[in-house]
Amino acid sequence: LYSSETITCTLFPGDGIGPEIADAVKTIFEAAKAPIDWDEQYIGKVADPRTNSMVTRENLDSVLKHRVGLKGPMATPIGKGHRSLNLTLRKELQLYANVRPCFSIPGYKTRYDDVNLITIRENTEGEYSGLEHEVVPGVVESLKVITRNASTRVAEYAFKYARDNGRKRVNSIHKANIMKMADGLFIKCCREVHEKYPEIEYSETIVDNACMQLVKNPAQFDVLVMPNLYGDIISDLCAGLIGGLGLTPSANIGANGLALMEAVHGTAPDIAGQDKANPTALLLSSVMMLRHLGLPEHADRIQNAVLDTIAEGKVITGDLGGKSKCSEFTNAIIDHMQ
Amino acid sequence: LYSSETITCTLFPGDGIGPEIADAVKTIFEAAKAPIDWDEQYIGKVADPRTNSMVTRENLDSVLKHRVGLKGPMATPIGKGHRSLNLTLRKELQLYANVRPCFSIPGYKTRYDDVNLITIRENTEGEYSGLEHEVVPGVVESLKVITRNASTRVAEYAFKYARDNGRKRVNSIHKANIMKMADGLFIKCCREVHEKYPEIEYSETIVDNACMQLVKNPAQFDVLVMPNLYGDIISDLCAGLIGGLGLTPSANIGANGLALMEAVHGTAPDIAGQDKANPTALLLSSVMMLRHLGLPEHADRIQNAVLDTIAEGKVITGDLGGKSKCSEFTNAIIDHMQ
Ligand SMILES: CC(C)[C@H](C(=O)O)[C@@H](O)C(=O)O
Ligand SMILES: CC(C)[C@H](C(=O)O)[C@@H](O)C(=O)O
Repeated sequence: LYSSETITCTLFPGDGIGPEIADAVKTIFEAAKAPIDWDEQYIGKVADPRTNSMVTRENLDSVLKHRVGLKGPMATPIGKGHRSLNLTLRKELQLYANVRPCFSIPGYKTRYDDVNLITIRENTEGEYSGLEHEVVPGVVESLKVITRNASTRVAEYAFKYARDNGRKRVNSIHKANIMKMADGLFIKCCREVHEKYPEIEYSETIVDNACMQLVKNPAQFDVLVMPNLYGDIISDLCAGLIGGLGLTPSANIGANGLALMEAVHGTAPDIAGQDKANPTALLLSSVMMLRHLGLPEHADRIQNAVLDTIAEGKVITGDLGGKSKCSEFTNAIIDHMQ
Repeated sequence: LYSSETITCTLFPGDGIGPEIADAVKTIFEAAKAPIDWDEQYIGKVADPRTNSMVTRENLDSVLKHRVGLKGPMATPIGKGHRSLNLTLRKELQLYANVRPCFSIPGYKTRYDDVNLITIRENTEGEYSGLEHEVVPGVVESLKVITRNASTRVAEYAFKYARDNGRKRVNSIHKANIMKMADGLFIKCCREVHEKYPEIEYSETIVDNACMQLVKNPAQFDVLVMPNLYGDIISDLCAGLIGGLGLTPSANIGANGLALMEAVHGTAPDIAGQDKANPTALLLSSVMMLRHLGLPEHADRIQNAVLDTIAEGKVITGDLGGKSKCSEFTNAIIDHMQ
């Protein structure tokens, strides 16, 4: 578990509980001897004229330089004209695939105990084009954009992910019975990419039916790939099956190894600064980061310690039904690593 | 339970298992002495040039004349240029609100036992505009259309429904953080309508979070109102919570009392004609029809008998875990009515 070289990654601690859970990650990485240095970046409080967003040019450049980063939750200021910080990062860095593994956490009881699936969401276009206008008063049009390039690229990612991770099946989620051209193009691209991966099964499910099937029997699903908004909806639905966004990691994947892992839960301002937050989602995101960097042993070590600590159920945070502080939970994870 | 006058309603038995479950409704209505005559209508097998759809002018005229109808499942022929029959009926008749009550069925065990909510879906526009085009090869645009008229009309329906049915809260579901103008207009209309219903609580939930909350704790929801596609997705998700589309009724509501109740499940060609189908969704839809017609006693009588038969669990169809035929289930319901 020693490495002669260290790798520098960008770290956005984020807002609210972000800094606390980022500290948990840093402490655990040190204890695990993960060969990572952090370039800590703070999103601005006023818009940078060069990016027209709170996300500054330096923020973007840090990720572009180090190629890999980890991001805590960020609060987008409410009000007109503020583009979500999450979206700014995804779009500016062309992080085209949003990957969310979702598995039942042993020891954390929900109505479901056999969830083990991955949602892969197109992350740059679709319903998130930002193109909207009022045609006449009281009539608004919003444009959903689906392109062959973006659809093929995310489909490629999904099939490759399935193959490289020993998964058997890719399921595309769509509403091509209604959006015949847009979602029709998306599934057409999936079918074409599938031809290059004959060893992976491929099927298609209409989005409404997919949601019904997911709540009835999530175990039937393996890797799901879909346009942006369906991915937004279904990844949250899936997170709900296993307990919520506090437990689910995510990765935003771009070209040439670019990747930004993020905890997708909120900033929880009500408990910020009180050492009460659960760092699991950010920790499991950091585990995805380690795997992405080719450090599977460090990844396994941390992941196992996190899951063992939760399964043991002795030192867990309030949201998991325990009474421990974030720092106590962090120390318990470190104990489990020894 | 006698009435001197009978009311004529349109009946589309539909395809596949449609005729069998429509027979169950007719038999039970007779036994319940429901004062209904049926104008049976069959959707054509070839497109009617006057409607450019399999739905003929006569089909539409029957509903327009009688104002109220009941519809079994219909199979839309696969292939280009075929507009869904369901959608044709909704659009041509301007059935602007799709109402789906969803409640846990006593005796039919799922992971959830406390669901009791109503989804109300805008049924005429949104992502279902049918407006799509290829801008350049490989780039498709699909238009989502949100209007003040349609949004206000469905919001009015939702608040009135809540008030008239003793419900406490209306929740609008949206993605106005992304589709700021389109979904922004939708929730703006909901807020305006709410001002006229101060006794009803009103809240707003972003669609991805709504799906997560629904699978975690559906009991927190009461009446949900939303644009077309979110309604499509969420109503199916909710159906999944209580067992599936075979158990959930729906009503399509238009202006001036126009209403078409429908079973939203498929035609189940694999079991069609074998007396195996479960008529519950169509029966509960027919119960909604009776209430709409101002016949609450007949409605209660039939609904109670259906639910008692399922709760008893002795004479139930295969999909509910039983071994009985559709006709046996129908007779058991009639026995429970005596
Ligand atoms: C915060 C919001 C803009 C974002 C999205 O819609 O993508 C979030 O829901 C997510 O899934 O990361
Ligand atoms: C069959 C399909 C066109 C329809 C829809 O998308 O509305 C169905 O899913 C429904 O909910 O009634």
